[in-house]
Formats: sequence, structure tokens, C-alpha cells
Amino acid sequence: MSLAFEISAAAASGGRSGVLRLPHGDVQTPVFMPVGTQATVKTVPQDVLERIGTDDAGVEIGTQIILANTYHLYLRPGHELVRRMGGVHRFMSWQRPMLTDSGGFQVFSLSQLRKVTDDGVEFRSHLDGSKHFFSPEHSVEVQIALGADIAMVFDECVETPATWQRTRDSMGLTHAWAARSKQYFDAHKHEVPWHAELGGKTQSLFGIVQGGMYADLRRESAERLVEMDFPGYAIGGLAVGEPREVTREMIARTLELLPKDKPRYVMGVGYPDEIEEYARMGVDMMDCVLPTRAARHGLLFRSAEVGEELSIAKPDTVEASDQASAESASETGRKTWVRMNIKRTEYAEDQRPIDERCSCMVCKRYTRAYLRHLFVAKEPLALTLNSIHNLSFYLDTMARVRAELAKA
Amino acid sequence: MSLAFEISAAAASGGRSGVLRLPHGDVQTPVFMPVGTQATVKTVPQDVLERIGTDDAGVEIGTQIILANTYHLYLRPGHELVRRMGGVHRFMSWQRPMLTDSGGFQVFSLSQLRKVTDDGVEFRSHLDGSKHFFSPEHSVEVQIALGADIAMVFDECVETPATWQRTRDSMGLTHAWAARSKQYFDAHKHEVPWHAELGGKTQSLFGIVQGGMYADLRRESAERLVEMDFPGYAIGGLAVGEPREVTREMIARTLELLPKDKPRYVMGVGYPDEIEEYARMGVDMMDCVLPTRAARHGLLFRSAEVGEELSIAKPDTVEASDQASAESASETGRKTWVRMNIKRTEYAEDQRPIDERCSCMVCKRYTRAYLRHLFVAKEPLALTLNSIHNLSFYLDTMARVRAELAKA
Repeated sequence: MSLAFEISAAAASGGRSGVLRLPHGDVQTPVFMPVGTQATVKTVPQDVLERIGTDDAGVEIGTQIILANTYHLYLRPGHELVRRMGGVHRFMSWQRPMLTDSGGFQVFSLSQLRKVTDDGVEFRSHLDGSKHFFSPEHSVEVQIALGADIAMVFDECVETPATWQRTRDSMGLTHAWAARSKQYFDAHKHEVPWHAELGGKTQSLFGIVQGGMYADLRRESAERLVEMDFPGYAIGGLAVGEPREVTREMIARTLELLPKDKPRYVMGVGYPDEIEEYARMGVDMMDCVLPTRAARHGLLFRSAEVGEELSIAKPDTVEASDQASAESASETGRKTWVRMNIKRTEYAEDQRPIDERCSCMVCKRYTRAYLRHLFVAKEPLALTLNSIHNLSFYLDTMARVRAELAKA
Repeated sequence: MSLAFEISAAAASGGRSGVLRLPHGDVQTPVFMPVGTQATVKTVPQDVLERIGTDDAGVEIGTQIILANTYHLYLRPGHELVRRMGGVHRFMSWQRPMLTDSGGFQVFSLSQLRKVTDDGVEFRSHLDGSKHFFSPEHSVEVQIALGADIAMVFDECVETPATWQRTRDSMGLTHAWAARSKQYFDAHKHEVPWHAELGGKTQSLFGIVQGGMYADLRRESAERLVEMDFPGYAIGGLAVGEPREVTREMIARTLELLPKDKPRYVMGVGYPDEIEEYARMGVDMMDCVLPTRAARHGLLFRSAEVGEELSIAKPDTVEASDQASAESASETGRKTWVRMNIKRTEYAEDQRPIDERCSCMVCKRYTRAYLRHLFVAKEPLALTLNSIHNLSFYLDTMARVRAELAKA
């Protein structure tokens, strides 16, 4: 069996806790997946990843699954090299589950001069301007060479905002590409580098529901993809600038249409309260660069303290880009987290840990004063320690939700 | 007792193994001290430092003692802030021994528009151009606020090459400053932040022998400093561009004149074979930015393999700046280490660890191919992993010499 999904408890909210069994190990769901774009979760050594995060009972289990980006690894060091090295797990020495995206999102967001035809996308590398072509077949070929446990169909990411007609046309292309991705995958999945080593197991290919911000198109997309019968489904094209209520509605509408016995994955979200909320709605997998990217900008997530529930509108804890998140917190009257800017002078002599309720290796050892010094002095260690804390905060958040759902 | 030095074995070569007992713990000597300029050994978390390096029996003991730079911490975050945070150990969460330099070397090498008078040095910050003044008294005041286990007298670092007369004049100033440093230290040493906490212990102030490349001046300097009676002595002003034979001669001549029962410290050296050689001559302590700085440039130290003894003249293993080291290796016919440039294409698919004889956490887990990818892709993790390996290589080198000397 190359993928099995066992749901152990389901709440009235739709949320469920379960286990996703993959060739490289089991993943307790719902799960947050740190992003390791270039076969590294930026600044964090693999042995540290293995020690970040706890299980439902508070026992340290480490990061369960990470992402890598197909577009980046295709360009550098090249998927054929990674294949010769035994696949991305062996290449980066990470023997736990992994997922690769299809490269579609990066082709549309990072590369230059792209030209989309029915056949695929021609684009220029953001590294050296060299010309490349990705078709659904080629994306899947690259993903098989990389050999993550889960691969994704190649899809078009429509610009935002987009009209209904433009979104529908794009969705049509995405569906055709999904079918071609699946066809290629089924014919070639045995070529994964660890096929023999893991007793004939293969990767699993997930479909991606598109349809922009149009509920009818989301329905059509979900129905078309379910017909194609994937072992798991992602909801793509969200968190691209739309209001939080729209994201939530699109997720809710799509979840209703996806098979309940298969894993559901929302790509590229979100703030800590978002991942909690979507997990409670029944999303099983999420990924986001936010914890690591924010860390590299000196922005640290921590639990809100008593009395801070009302501070959400303050510009120093919630910045403009947090607006959606701040508003939604207002609605429910709860604010469980605060984002602090460690550069601020107020932390210069603050001997507290980032988060007094956090038991991560950074909070157990270092003060805000020291972390501020490292960041202000441009020391690379600042980025590592900040990333470890933010990832711990995200993984602990998800462990807490899992524990709640398990009791449901 | 704020410092005790116990020599347990001495070889015919002059080398000895011993234990240096300091307020924050014991240090097995001879010891290599990694440099943590801004209260961080660049890119390496403290818990990793605690796991790098082995004792004489191959048991993991971690880094025993690290340096911090007074000049840098004085400018940022400021010594008074560090004092308020409880001293540099608490500030950076490093409860093992530390040493601070006097700031003299950095004032002379990094800062601009410096003006030297008998009283001290006026200089401009390399960070913002602001004007500062360091006297021997002020350097020691700053070092007491930082609170490392060992502080250094403030000295002038003469430019190189310098004439005999210029070197002698500078040395005279250094001696006057050494006396003033000691006087200030003796009057204020109880002000160290951990004085009460550690039962009345204090830091120890080491003298620094100068005298440039002139044996008669080195003799005069050593004699003058020994008269002042310091608990340990450094040999400064070496490894500043002179030929390796001159460095060795200056060290040998000076060691003869220093008390055998006190620790001897050569500042700012060197390549792996240099630290071995000086340790065998009787040097007890050394520090150098080389392993960490080289790591950040993708240059990795490893053991020479069989057959590589004769490859020392090859430009790809030994670069121009290694000339002194390469020549000296030729003389003895031994070459125990090689410096590899991990960027090179030849490593792109090399599945071996950096050093097959190394048991560090990087060599146990990662391939050259992956480390090359990280470096070429400009991933920050490259700098961390490279630094961990290079430091391990240096600390293991010294552990091996300690084991040899202990059997003497």
C-alpha cells in the first residue's frame, strides 16, 4: 500500500484526526508541513526538524512531513541529479515523509516570460534566464525523479482577481492537465528511485481543485477531479489576496464535495488561527512559508497573554498584511497569538523567552534580549533560532488541535 | 580560586597536557577555542557547540571554551547592557568557560581614523562612524562587564612589517598598558556580574607578549610581563603575514622564557597542522577564526587520504594563501589535512561524507553532493553545516594531540 488514510475521530465541526500512512512513515493528521524549497527548510538542520513539535500527548515527535519545491529542484541541482542520488529523501538525508508541489505555482509566480499553451508552459528560469518547458507529463516526470511520498498534478494558477470566464477557462486547462498528469503518473510511477528498496511502494498523486473565488466553479472542479479518482485532493488557488471570509467559504464549499475518506490538503495557508480553523473544518494537511519567512524577517509568533485579546488592532502586533486575520479574530472575540517584531527596542533587555508557554528548544534556552541582539547584529544564528521557534509554534498549534479532535 | 592550572603530563618536545580550572568549568589543554565574535560562534547554535568535539578518549565533551570579541560587544549591544543581563555567559546562554580579547586588535584592524596616544586609542566605529576611546582601563572595565572567565590586557598591535625601533616603541607602550590594565583589573575585578553567584570568584587577566619578529624584543617583552606576574600569558602579534618559520621561532623563543606552570596562549593561529605543532611545543591555548570563516566560504578541512601526502602542491587543494602551511608540510614530508572547496563540480554527485574518518554530526549524516547543493544554492544551512564540520575537525585534531601528550 503506497498510501492509507485512517480517520480515528471526527468532530461535529467536520474536523477529524487520523493517520496518513506513506512509504516513508506515518503522519498524524491534521498536519502542518514546513516548506523546504531547495531540499532544506531554510536555516534549520534536519536533526533539529526531527526534534521540533510534539504529538497529541505532548511527546516530542518532531516534524512529520516536509515539502520541497519541484520548480527549484528542477532548476538546481536538477531532478536527474537528485534521481541519481537516490531521490530527495536520500539526497537531503530526510527519511520521513515528503511532498512535492508540481512547480505550477512557481512557474506562474517566479519565472519570467512564460507562455501558456494547451500543451504546457514555456518559461525562463529566475536564476539565469534560461528557457524551459513544463508540461503535465514533464512535471510528473520531475516529481517521480525527486521521489517525494506525495506528488501533485500540474495545474495552471490563474492570476487574481480573475473574471468568472477567465477562471473557468483556466480551470478547464487544469482539469485536462490533471488527467494527463495522472495518466503519466500511472504509467511511470514504478520509476521512483526507492521503488525496489521500499518493496514496490510508489508515490501517490493528489489532484488539485481550482475554480478561483467562484463557488459554482469550485463545485465543478471538485466533481471533475473526484471523477478522476485521486488518493487525495488539494484545494489550490486560495490565500492569494482574497478576504479571509472568501477563503473560508471556498474551503467549506469544496470540503463538502470531496470524499470524506480521503486526505484533503489546503495549499499555502496560513496564520496560526487559520490553520486551526481549517483543521477544525476538516482539512487534513496544510503548508505555508509563513513561519519560516516571517522568522527571517524577525517576526515571531507567540501565544497571546491574558489581556492581550483586545490588542489585536494595535499596529505593532498586527501589521497591515494581517488584516484578514485580525478581523476574523475580532469576530470570534478570540486572539490566541501575537506576532512580535524582535527588532524592536522594547526587547533589548527583555530576559523572558519569546513565549513563556512554549517549550521549544529556543524558548527553553534563549532570551528575547539575546535574539534581538543576534537579529540586529545580522548574525545568521538569528534566522535559525527564529525559524525553529516559529515552526515549533505552528507544529504545537496543530498538535493541540489534533488532541482536541481526537477527543471528539 | 579563580584560575588553577594543573599539568598532568609533559613530553620531551615541550608539549604538555593539563587542566585549566576556571569559574565556569574545567578546560582540558591544549585547547582550541572557537571564536564567537558577537556572542555567537557564527551560524552554530549553542547546543550544537556543546556536542562538538571529543575528549582524549573519544568521548563527546563538546566545545570547552569559546572567545567573544570585546570591540564588537562594546559597540553592539554595549557592555553595560550585557552587564545588566548578567554578563556574556547568561546573555548568550553559554555556561561554559569564555575568554574575551582586549579589543586592541579590532581597534587596529577594523576601525577607522584611529589616533594612538600614551593614554589610549581614539577610533571610529566600523558600524556607524561614531567616535570612541579605549584606554587600558576602559578595555578592562568593558571586559569586567562582559565577565568572560579570562580577560586580556589592552595592547597595541604594531603594523607589519615594522622596523626594530618602531616595534620596540610600540612594545614599550604595550608594557605600560599591561601594567595599567592589571592595576585597574585588581581594583575592580570584584565587579564582575557573577561575583556573588559564583562564591566570590573573579576573572583572570592574562598578559600579552609582543615584540614583533625580533627575538631580542620578544625576550625583553616576556621578561617584563613575567615581572608583572600574570596568571597566564599570551603571545600576540604573530600569524600576521610572516613566514611560518618565523612564527615558529618566535613562539619557541618566547615559550622558553614563560613560567612553565602557567598557561600559554598563542593568539590567532592557525591551520590544523599549525595548532598541532604549537601544542606539541608547549602552547596550551589557541584561537582562530579560520575554521568558521573558511566554512562560510565553502572551504572544508578534512583528513588527507592515503596517497594524498604528495598532492600538497596541487593548486586545487592548497591555495596561494596556504603557501606557508604547504611548504612546512613538505619539509616534514607529512600532510595530514586537505582543504576542499565544496563549490567544485567534482563534488556534485559525490555521496561520501566530507571526511570519511570524521565522526561529526555533519559527516555522519550528509553527503558532499548535498553540501555542495546547499552552498551553490546559497542556502544558509550550508554555512551552519560547514562550520560544524570545520570546528569538529579542529577540536578533534586538538583532542588527538592531547591524547598523545597525555601518554608522554
